Amino acid sequence: MISVGQNETTDPTDLIMERSWAAWQDYRLRPLSERAGLMREIARGLDAMGDALIGIAMRETHLPEARLKGERARTIFQLNSYADACERGDWMELRIDTADLQRNPPKPDIRKMMVPLGPVLVYGASNFPFAYSTAGGDTACALAAGCTVVVKAHPAHPETSDAVAECVRTALVACGLPIDVFLHVHAQTLEEGKALVTHPRTRAVGFTGSHTAGRSIYDWANSRPDPIPVFAEMGSVNPVFLLPEKLAVDASEISKMYAGSITLGVGQFCTNPGLIFGIGGEALDRFTEELSQWIRKIPAAPMLHAGIAGAYTTKRAAVLDQSNVAEVARGLSGTEELHGSATIATVDGDSFLSNPLLHQEVFGPFSLVVRCRDAEQMLRIAEVLEGQLTCTVMGTNDEIAHHPALMAAISDRCGRLILNGVPTGVEVCLSMHHGGPYPSSTDARFTSVGADGIKRFSRPLSYQSWPDELLPDALKNANPMGYLRVINNEPSTGPVVPSA
Amino acid sequence: MISVGQNETTDPTDLIMERSWAAWQDYRLRPLSERAGLMREIARGLDAMGDALIGIAMRETHLPEARLKGERARTIFQLNSYADACERGDWMELRIDTADLQRNPPKPDIRKMMVPLGPVLVYGASNFPFAYSTAGGDTACALAAGCTVVVKAHPAHPETSDAVAECVRTALVACGLPIDVFLHVHAQTLEEGKALVTHPRTRAVGFTGSHTAGRSIYDWANSRPDPIPVFAEMGSVNPVFLLPEKLAVDASEISKMYAGSITLGVGQFCTNPGLIFGIGGEALDRFTEELSQWIRKIPAAPMLHAGIAGAYTTKRAAVLDQSNVAEVARGLSGTEELHGSATIATVDGDSFLSNPLLHQEVFGPFSLVVRCRDAEQMLRIAEVLEGQLTCTVMGTNDEIAHHPALMAAISDRCGRLILNGVPTGVEVCLSMHHGGPYPSSTDARFTSVGADGIKRFSRPLSYQSWPDELLPDALKNANPMGYLRVINNEPSTGPVVPSA
Repeated sequence: MISVGQNETTDPTDLIMERSWAAWQDYRLRPLSERAGLMREIARGLDAMGDALIGIAMRETHLPEARLKGERARTIFQLNSYADACERGDWMELRIDTADLQRNPPKPDIRKMMVPLGPVLVYGASNFPFAYSTAGGDTACALAAGCTVVVKAHPAHPETSDAVAECVRTALVACGLPIDVFLHVHAQTLEEGKALVTHPRTRAVGFTGSHTAGRSIYDWANSRPDPIPVFAEMGSVNPVFLLPEKLAVDASEISKMYAGSITLGVGQFCTNPGLIFGIGGEALDRFTEELSQWIRKIPAAPMLHAGIAGAYTTKRAAVLDQSNVAEVARGLSGTEELHGSATIATVDGDSFLSNPLLHQEVFGPFSLVVRCRDAEQMLRIAEVLEGQLTCTVMGTNDEIAHHPALMAAISDRCGRLILNGVPTGVEVCLSMHHGGPYPSSTDARFTSVGADGIKRFSRPLSYQSWPDELLPDALKNANPMGYLRVINNEPSTGPVVPSA
Repeated sequence: MISVGQNETTDPTDLIMERSWAAWQDYRLRPLSERAGLMREIARGLDAMGDALIGIAMRETHLPEARLKGERARTIFQLNSYADACERGDWMELRIDTADLQRNPPKPDIRKMMVPLGPVLVYGASNFPFAYSTAGGDTACALAAGCTVVVKAHPAHPETSDAVAECVRTALVACGLPIDVFLHVHAQTLEEGKALVTHPRTRAVGFTGSHTAGRSIYDWANSRPDPIPVFAEMGSVNPVFLLPEKLAVDASEISKMYAGSITLGVGQFCTNPGLIFGIGGEALDRFTEELSQWIRKIPAAPMLHAGIAGAYTTKRAAVLDQSNVAEVARGLSGTEELHGSATIATVDGDSFLSNPLLHQEVFGPFSLVVRCRDAEQMLRIAEVLEGQLTCTVMGTNDEIAHHPALMAAISDRCGRLILNGVPTGVEVCLSMHHGGPYPSSTDARFTSVGADGIKRFSRPLSYQSWPDELLPDALKNANPMGYLRVINNEPSTGPVVPSA
C-alpha cells in the first residue's frame, strides 16, 4: 500500500501511476545531459544484449533475424540521435524578451521554454517490437522531454518487452536515476488500458496500432475531466499517384519498385502502399501486368501473429468481394497458418469513389490499382481521400509543375509527400514527419519519428520577471551551452546582454 | 445555390464553409509577403476608422473609451507584429536533411515545413471586442499561417464586429485577395455554432470565453469523424502565492498592487487574480486588512453586458454562501444594473481544500484570500489546483530557492509563472505563453497571445526527394529570404550547399 496524496491505495493502476509521478518529481529537474546519458546507456544495453534478445523476438514475432537486427539498430540510432537532439536543446524553443522599464507601462522580462508534461503512457506496437515498443521512439522522446514513462507491453511479444524493460532498468541504475522513471506493465484487458489512460497522473499517451484501438484511447483521453494529448499513429493506405507521362516511360521500373515496396516485411508497415491510382489506358495496363508478374513470384511469408494474419485474409476477401473489384495477381501460397501471400487487385475509379470500404487499409502485402477515367477523376479522388501518413507521386517535373490543383489536394491529405520513390522506409531524421491528417494519426501536428517527436511530450512555460539566478539554466543570461534562443525576436546562440 | 463537390446545396453553413474552402485554394499558395501585407492593411484600416469605431464599441460593450482605444492599439500591434513574424518565417520550422546516396540504403533528401490547416472558425470574445474578436489574435494568426477565416461574431457586440469585418473586406480588396478569405457570420443559436464546428471543411477553431461554451465546442470537434484542433482559452483563477518572508516586509505594497490588479477593467480579464494564498498569521492579516481598505474605495463600474453582470453577482453569492467563507470588503456599490462592485472574501485552507466550488472562477472583481495552516498546506493546495493560465509567486529570492517542491508544483499548474508582479497585463511578444493546463485552455501546448500562436493553425509536411525547382520557396536551396533553417541538424540562415 502506498500513499496517494492524502489517501492510501491498493489499486494497481494507482500504485503504478503514483510511482511514476513520484519519480517524475526528481527526473523533471535533471539536466539534459543526464537525460541524454540515460538514453545512450539504454542504447548501449540493447546492443550488448546481442543475439539473445534477437532470439526472443524471433520466437515471439516471427520476423526474420535480419529484419529484427535492423530494427534494433534503428532503435539504438533513435535513442542516440534523440539524445543528441535533447542536448542540443532546439526542442525547448527558447524565447527571451528583455525588460523595457522606460516603456509606459513598463515591459517585464519574459522568458519561455518547453517543460515536460509528466508521466507518459506508451503502448507497445505489435509490428515494431523494438523501434515502437518498450524502448522505442515514444519512450525515447518522452525521456528526452523530461517525462517518466509507463510502458504497456504489447501482448504479442511480452518476453521481448520484458527483456528490453530489464535493459532500461539496468541503465537507470547505472545512471543513478530513480528506478521508477520507467515502469513496465502487462495489461491483459481493455479495461486495464483504459484505467491507465484515464488515471489523473497520466499526462499523455503514445500509441502505434489499429484505428479501432487508437480511436478508443483517444476517446477515453478526451472524456477525462482534464483531457490529455494522445499521439496515436493508426496506419494509412499510402496512396500512390501515377501520372501518365512518367508512367508511359517508366512503367517497368515502377512496377518492379512497387512489387518490392508492397511486399516488404510481408506488407506489415504503416507506410505500405495500399492504393495505386493511374489513368486507364495502355501504360496503366502494362504497369499492372508487370507488377502482377513480379507479385506472382513472391513467396508467402509468416505474418506477426495469428490475429494479424487472420485480419489480412478477412479484409482482403472483403475487398475482393466488392463490385467491380478483380484480383489480378497473387503471390506464391504459404504452407503455414500465419503465411500471408501478396495480392494485387484492380477496380475502376467510379466504383472506388462510391465505395468507402475500398479506401480502408488491408494491413499486409495487398494493393489495389484504381483505373481513373481521366485526370479530373484522379483529382476528385485526391480531394476526397481520408488523411494519410504519406502520399507518393510518380511524375515528370513537367507533370508536377502543370498539375497544381492535384498537388495541392494531395499535399492536403498527407504528412509526407514523396516524389518518384516508395513510401516504405521512414528515415529517422529531423526533417521527417510521420503523422498525417486523421485517421492516419490523431494529431497531424506532431511526428512520431525524428527528434521533433520530443515536442509531443512537452509544453511551453513562460517565466515573467524572474531574476537570472532563479531561472532554469537554459533561460539564464549566460548561455554557456550555446543553445539557440530567440532574443528580442533575433535568433542567437550567445548570452543575453542586459540593457544599460 | 453553389456546388459542393459533386452536389449542390442551399444550407447556409455549407455555403459559408465551401466559400471559405474555395478561397483557401488560392490563399494557401500566396507568399508570406502577401499574407503580411493583408494583415498590415487591416491594421491600417482599424486605425483609420478613428473615433467612429470606438463609439460603436462603447455603446455595445460599456467599456470606457480609454480601454477601447488601448485595446484597438493592441489589436493593431498584434496584426503588425504577427505580420513581421509571418515574414520572418521562424514559425515554419524549416528542416532540411540532404541526401546521402553513398549510404546503404541510400538516404533520400527530405525537407519539412509548416503548412496551413485550412479554413479556421474564430469565435468572437465578449470581453475583448477588438483584440480577441473579429480581427483579433486568432484571426491574425490564422491569416499568417495561410488559413482562411470564418468569424462567428459575438452577440454582445454585433455592430462592432460588423464594422471590423467591413474593414477586413476593404483590406482584402485593396490587397487583391479573394473576398472570401474572410467571412463573417452572426449565428443566433448554439446549433448554428455546432454546424460550423462540425462542418467537414472546418479545420480548426479558436475560442475565448467560458468553460461551458469552450468544452462544448471541444466535445463537438472531438466527436467529428475527423476530429479537429480546438484552441479554447476558457479562463482561469490565476492563483497568487504569498510567501511569508516577502509578505512580512512588503504587505502594504502588495495589497495596493493587488487592489489594482483585482479591479482592473472591472475584473473582466482572464488573468484576473481570483485566489490569494498566504500562511495564516499577522502578516497575512495585515495584508488582508490593507487590501480591504483599498477595495472599499473602489467605485463600482459597469460590466460588459447583463449576462456577465448577473453571473458575477450569482457566482459571488454562491462563494460567500459556503461554509467558513467570510466577506471582508466590498467596494462602493453601483447605481446601475450592470454595475459590479469589487469584493474580497477569506476562507481557511482546510475549507478551501474540501470545497471544489471555491476553486472556480468568479468572473469579475472578486478575490478569495485563503489562510493556509502552514507551508505544507500551501504545497498541498498547489499540488491539487486545477490548471491555470498564470500563477504568481510573491517571495524573496531566498524563499524561492528554498521551496523547490512548491515551485515545481506551481509551475506544473500554469502556463505563465510570474514573480513579484501581477497576472493582469498580457504582453504581446514571442516569449509570452497564454494557454495553461486544462481547464484554463483545451491545449496547453499552444498560445493564443504572441506570434507563436501562428503555429496553432499549421501542421508539418515533409517533402521527400523533390527537385529544387519544384519545392516551396522556403525549402529551396538558395534561401534568398535568409530564413532560419536547420540543415543536417545545424541551424543556418544560408543556402543549402549540395554535396559534391
